[in-house]
Amino acid sequence: MIDIQSTPDPRHISIDRVGIKDLRYPIKVRLPHGGYQQTIAEIDVFVDLHPKFRGTHMSRFVEIIDRISGQELTLFTLPDILTQVREQLGSKTSELYIRFPYFLRKKAPVSEIAGMVDYQCRFHGRLDGEMVFTYGVTAPVTSLCPCSREISEAGAHNQRGEVSVDIRSVDKEIIWFEELIETVESCVSAPVFSILKREDEKYVTELAYKNPVFVEDIVRSLAEKFSNDERIVWFRVQAKSHESIHNHNAFAVIERDKTG
Amino acid sequence: MIDIQSTPDPRHISIDRVGIKDLRYPIKVRLPHGGYQQTIAEIDVFVDLHPKFRGTHMSRFVEIIDRISGQELTLFTLPDILTQVREQLGSKTSELYIRFPYFLRKKAPVSEIAGMVDYQCRFHGRLDGEMVFTYGVTAPVTSLCPCSREISEAGAHNQRGEVSVDIRSVDKEIIWFEELIETVESCVSAPVFSILKREDEKYVTELAYKNPVFVEDIVRSLAEKFSNDERIVWFRVQAKSHESIHNHNAFAVIERDKTG
Amino acid sequence: MIDIQSTPDPRHISIDRVGIKDLRYPIKVRLPHGGYQQTIAEIDVFVDLHPKFRGTHMSRFVEIIDRISGQELTLFTLPDILTQVREQLGSKTSELYIRFPYFLRKKAPVSEIAGMVDYQCRFHGRLDGEMVFTYGVTAPVTSLCPCSREISEAGAHNQRGEVSVDIRSVDKEIIWFEELIETVESCVSAPVFSILKREDEKYVTELAYKNPVFVEDIVRSLAEKFSNDERIVWFRVQAKSHESIHNHNAFAVIERDKTG
Amino acid sequence: MIDIQSTPDPRHISIDRVGIKDLRYPIKVRLPHGGYQQTIAEIDVFVDLHPKFRGTHMSRFVEIIDRISGQELTLFTLPDILTQVREQLGSKTSELYIRFPYFLRKKAPVSEIAGMVDYQCRFHGRLDGEMVFTYGVTAPVTSLCPCSREISEAGAHNQRGEVSVDIRSVDKEIIWFEELIETVESCVSAPVFSILKREDEKYVTELAYKNPVFVEDIVRSLAEKFSNDERIVWFRVQAKSHESIHNHNAFAVIERDKTG
Repeated sequence: MIDIQSTPDPRHISIDRVGIKDLRYPIKVRLPHGGYQQTIAEIDVFVDLHPKFRGTHMSRFVEIIDRISGQELTLFTLPDILTQVREQLGSKTSELYIRFPYFLRKKAPVSEIAGMVDYQCRFHGRLDGEMVFTYGVTAPVTSLCPCSREISEAGAHNQRGEVSVDIRSVDKEIIWFEELIETVESCVSAPVFSILKREDEKYVTELAYKNPVFVEDIVRSLAEKFSNDERIVWFRVQAKSHESIHNHNAFAVIERDKTG
Repeated sequence: MIDIQSTPDPRHISIDRVGIKDLRYPIKVRLPHGGYQQTIAEIDVFVDLHPKFRGTHMSRFVEIIDRISGQELTLFTLPDILTQVREQLGSKTSELYIRFPYFLRKKAPVSEIAGMVDYQCRFHGRLDGEMVFTYGVTAPVTSLCPCSREISEAGAHNQRGEVSVDIRSVDKEIIWFEELIETVESCVSAPVFSILKREDEKYVTELAYKNPVFVEDIVRSLAEKFSNDERIVWFRVQAKSHESIHNHNAFAVIERDKTG
Repeated sequence: MIDIQSTPDPRHISIDRVGIKDLRYPIKVRLPHGGYQQTIAEIDVFVDLHPKFRGTHMSRFVEIIDRISGQELTLFTLPDILTQVREQLGSKTSELYIRFPYFLRKKAPVSEIAGMVDYQCRFHGRLDGEMVFTYGVTAPVTSLCPCSREISEAGAHNQRGEVSVDIRSVDKEIIWFEELIETVESCVSAPVFSILKREDEKYVTELAYKNPVFVEDIVRSLAEKFSNDERIVWFRVQAKSHESIHNHNAFAVIERDKTG
Repeated sequence: MIDIQSTPDPRHISIDRVGIKDLRYPIKVRLPHGGYQQTIAEIDVFVDLHPKFRGTHMSRFVEIIDRISGQELTLFTLPDILTQVREQLGSKTSELYIRFPYFLRKKAPVSEIAGMVDYQCRFHGRLDGEMVFTYGVTAPVTSLCPCSREISEAGAHNQRGEVSVDIRSVDKEIIWFEELIETVESCVSAPVFSILKREDEKYVTELAYKNPVFVEDIVRSLAEKFSNDERIVWFRVQAKSHESIHNHNAFAVIERDKTG
């Protein structure tokens, strides 16, 4: 059976990235204290393509994803996947995006009743000569507007927002999602919870009122912490606030490369 | 050329609804005081299919939509479209869903600076013996929690929400989107705006604090108004609040058929 | 601390459904031959609200979901959840929607290499005097157009589509998702796979070409099967085809209540 | 009234981008031969923020957008908007993203019946010392798999896909969306249409069968054309195919900076 993909391409143009996108697959994510969390990822895998080949071999990407879906994913297992992709596709580079919900059991602040909160986590790895990894999380948060609070006789507009942090850490150093989430929650008006009894709701309302933040404050506080953290060599921090008084969002981002 | 669609179907099963879905098309919506607003709709058009035909003729649906896209859409022009669909598809019934953003110019409450706010509007019509029309709007709103306000020393959690109202009105009686939106905004903590200067933000923050509502309050106030409005024979009112202290939404719905 | 929710409501209006929407939570779904699949659900839970109460108690819904998230979900465990919701919220009715991806390991038709395919499954239960359950699945499929095939000298347009089936089965009778998916795949041009080597791609291409179907054919074949299946008392079957030659979708639906 | 935003920030950290995101607003897009198309944009506007200010003034962004929404948008009017944003926000840089559907009236290839097809267009401008603009379009297309065609006795899997091209052109040179769309459609198996009668469907089916392309072929053909086009100094071309035989997508991208 002819292998059309391996026939030469007359245009002599190399392709930066080719592969599969939006593949949903069950994965296991390593937990900090051992064990794993079973979750469902959306995966993109790409390689470059040499000018001499007309096409890549798409089925091999899925075969590799299938092989790894039974293993525990961590920063330590990603390099091996990228190497497998490159070898089996015969490419110079390989790249991987894995996005997945990650659940933490979280106690309400006063009643201490626990429930699950979902965070959107991700890994990104690229092998192009050297290996480069970034990873991050998007956490739901409460933000309360400092301006609204200051100028109003009572109350202050507040809302749900999303704070995203992505980092590259120094070699062999893992900063777990749990720690990233905790850092995010220390820079906002209040964390969000899944279960809040009345005593908790009072606590969280008052906590947010005591900690008004603009999206500008959130990204600056995070940038300050990550700048001072020697385990982190690159970061991007973003805050998006679903303004309760508008039908659009407020947004801020800071990105810093400490290697440069 | 053979017309496969018109060949008989061996299964002798009638189809409830068949047609096209998610067709994006420019449309013109009639304004209350004359003139129109140019907007972009997502359209579904369906007919029933007799057991004797294998398929409907999909291209005819788009031809009809194309013909009407230059005309002003109102409750008065929809019957004609439904009749055209039924006649040209040779069906017993016809049905139409039109969803589109609709913009209102809205003044900030104190500075009176004006900007546009987008509302999601919709028409639904069905011809099955008689013609039945419903229409409605989803408006962004601010809701402030009465419980949080009552139990907290300062502040109260509030958030963006969406309130949806759909109605059927008595024959020949149009309730314009403008009036429906105004009614929704009279039942929430505060409307949302596109431009708010500081004096406006103070006003809106204090307004919301003075008008705390649960999603339950919103749908009840709307139900009360619509129950007492003799122009309305059926309604469904829904409130969804993107809770600022949770990562899930609060929701309530009331539906009443006054003809029953 | 005052319980605002339990204060009387002056409007004396009952609410049809009130509760939480879009709560993401890990769940375990029972497998046909024992064991379970860990997945992630999006959950809505509602109750009715008596005119005398101003609000429901939202946190209790999440507490119940949290309690059940460690148990295996089946049609047999849903009644107990609905009963718990009704009792703990003091309501007359309770209702539950659970939507989740479900993965099946599927062998390629010739090479027999296996990979995972994701299906969107759901449970719906309502307790209102009696208990009523429906459940269903949306499966990705290939559809190839009979008209295009018949009139063209070579080839035929085909595309990815989604087929949805929802059923109510007779008491104590479970039709597993695996069987529903198999039934869907027997009524389309070809199933979709996650891994296909060249020999498989040839097989699937030729299979689809031999089995051209309109969306009308898909829903009729499913309706015929479900009409003849005595375990099923109600069904709704829908087919949506992402037409490769258009930027809109073709759609058909048949719903039948065999109890009527 | 105190202006909290203008108070100094103790963290002394500059912010890369801060502003508003996902603002929906009506806009007018200039047509090649005069006149304009009324459409609805989703807009992001950002500035940088100096370490000495705690916050930016969000309402000013919307005021500027409101002012321009009545004017015809072209590459020639964007510089003025970026300049206004920078001046009125007192920033060093300004940035603008405008995304909107754009409709073309398209004749079916044989019957010549015309209907509208929607394309997703966008402008991006950044003022940071110099002004840099890119613009682009995502067009729905049909792609037919060369491998499937070659190895199968009859038929070939094909599907809807999305092809995105983004370019930067030399100063004062506009390449209209119409031309970009035409270029995209010349590199795929077949364009998509809104209305196709049977004779058109035959034509399009056979056209696609005669022009099989991988996503790799699409991006290479586009890269070849744009490389040879002296009006273009930078481009990124992407092809995503909603594989009809899989539940994931095939993807390829080429980006070239000709100034480097």
